[in-house]
Amino acid sequence: MKAPTNENEIIGRIAEVFPHHWPRTVALALGDDGALWRPRAGNEVVLTCDWLLEGCHFLRAKHPAEAVGWKCLARAVSDIAAMGGVPRCFLLSLALPASLTGKWFDGFLQGLKRAAKSLRCELAGGDTTRQEKVLINVTVVGEVRRGRALLRAGAHAGDSLFVSGRLGEAEAGLDELRRRKGAVRRSSENLHKHLYPEPRLALGEWLGKRRLATAAMDLSDGLSSDLPRLCAASGVGARVDVDCLPVVRNLKLAQARHLGLHGGDDYELLFTVAEKDVKRVPRAYRGVQLTRIGKITREKRIVVMEGGKTRKLEAGGWDPFGK
Amino acid sequence: MKAPTNENEIIGRIAEVFPHHWPRTVALALGDDGALWRPRAGNEVVLTCDWLLEGCHFLRAKHPAEAVGWKCLARAVSDIAAMGGVPRCFLLSLALPASLTGKWFDGFLQGLKRAAKSLRCELAGGDTTRQEKVLINVTVVGEVRRGRALLRAGAHAGDSLFVSGRLGEAEAGLDELRRRKGAVRRSSENLHKHLYPEPRLALGEWLGKRRLATAAMDLSDGLSSDLPRLCAASGVGARVDVDCLPVVRNLKLAQARHLGLHGGDDYELLFTVAEKDVKRVPRAYRGVQLTRIGKITREKRIVVMEGGKTRKLEAGGWDPFGK
Repeated sequence: MKAPTNENEIIGRIAEVFPHHWPRTVALALGDDGALWRPRAGNEVVLTCDWLLEGCHFLRAKHPAEAVGWKCLARAVSDIAAMGGVPRCFLLSLALPASLTGKWFDGFLQGLKRAAKSLRCELAGGDTTRQEKVLINVTVVGEVRRGRALLRAGAHAGDSLFVSGRLGEAEAGLDELRRRKGAVRRSSENLHKHLYPEPRLALGEWLGKRRLATAAMDLSDGLSSDLPRLCAASGVGARVDVDCLPVVRNLKLAQARHLGLHGGDDYELLFTVAEKDVKRVPRAYRGVQLTRIGKITREKRIVVMEGGKTRKLEAGGWDPFGK
Repeated sequence: MKAPTNENEIIGRIAEVFPHHWPRTVALALGDDGALWRPRAGNEVVLTCDWLLEGCHFLRAKHPAEAVGWKCLARAVSDIAAMGGVPRCFLLSLALPASLTGKWFDGFLQGLKRAAKSLRCELAGGDTTRQEKVLINVTVVGEVRRGRALLRAGAHAGDSLFVSGRLGEAEAGLDELRRRKGAVRRSSENLHKHLYPEPRLALGEWLGKRRLATAAMDLSDGLSSDLPRLCAASGVGARVDVDCLPVVRNLKLAQARHLGLHGGDDYELLFTVAEKDVKRVPRAYRGVQLTRIGKITREKRIVVMEGGKTRKLEAGGWDPFGK
């Protein structure tokens, strides 16, 4: 198959991979100035967008094109999960070097399509252009029952702090990727989580419907960077019990805990639960473990407790402007 | 005022310029994982997004930061106008070099805010990161009465072809910008149109409400690149009467007509009107001239007629992958 050589051909290739009749939650998708879509009665629209940039969020020589396609959608959908919403459709903004419109582009579209199917999120439109580096921006549109969205504001002193899954796995996977020579073929559990994150959609929807969480967000930059954001939105502080933190297995404990506190890209949910409801939180929801890792406090500081000692938690997660 | 040095400070600066209480069509905007918003009853959501990339769509040394801020929103809103919709809110994805988070960023935000006020489109969220070049992606969310959206598909043989405004002005403005030395301070009419395009929102809404246009789109890449897209969507061809084309004044006719056929960035509306309705189209709508420039044809070719002679119209507009 010939690689596309102009914008119309590139859009045509996308339209081939995402045919018009599939899965049709969107009234009007590709091929017009905009897309048309309606939320169901009683629902609100949830809007979110995310960058995925070569050299910043992925390395062309290291990350398989399929993983780039999967991840650009999955990480944006994770924000919908964090709101307790259901994803419906997305817009893909893609800038490519002319040299990548062939095999790389096809791999990317296959990964993207797999994610779109798995996350039930339909391609509704986008914009394509040429650049020397691969630039991706994805906007996801979802919906949530009016008044049931999980917000960052809402945590109260005394609430318990929970996370899903294990923290630091994606960062451990990235370390592994960096150490490997050449492109990735086989994948460990951690590397798989780094390359193909699975947004916690079922959990988010369940927390919202049951009104279980007083506040929630997804962990994209790392607990030490994200928890302060939830606390700032809620006007509270927090104490994290590091001894309880669910961390990467098969690593030295100190290293695993460091990754657990500061590692990014996990896309697990961080949520708070009022004391009276803590017993309603199961150990796991649909196979994803849920762990109580601390408490919300009145004092607006974020501290960690480790081996009985308390210290301030410094933000050490991902900040593109940091260092 | 100190320039922001990390992602939280950059988001904080954006939140200062776009305070929470302003204009509040969005239930939940900045500061959470996503934004919450609802269209009015009976309306559909219109979704569109657009790149604005340094070196590709603008030059940092030439384009004022204010114009970059204005234009990134205005050109995305133009797609809402082309659908006959009303813009409601937008997501801003911004990647900046660390050296531009001060004066340049402030100028950018001022231009963006002016556009947001003028176009009544509220900032609802976004994503920021660092890159060596300025990368901008804007998603605009609008709404339109169900079933009243202006689509590209819908033109029939015999319909008349109309454009708003004059074509080629923005490209003439860009030529002027390229010839100038250093940054721009004073602006000609053409240059102003290149830097601060005004999406034809009132016209689009009027065409949709009156059911006057059988098909419509906005002209972003140039008539010779965009008209084939409208024709392809409608399964028709077109004949453009170049002698009727509203073009740049104060240029040699041949040059003005070349810009009129191929110049990009005008953000005028191209629309088709059934023969029975042509007399309902005024010479101007709210100060914007409307000109009949040709006919939709059954033959799926796009031709131009000039001085009584007919020739094929070759796409000569903006294609990022072209040349």
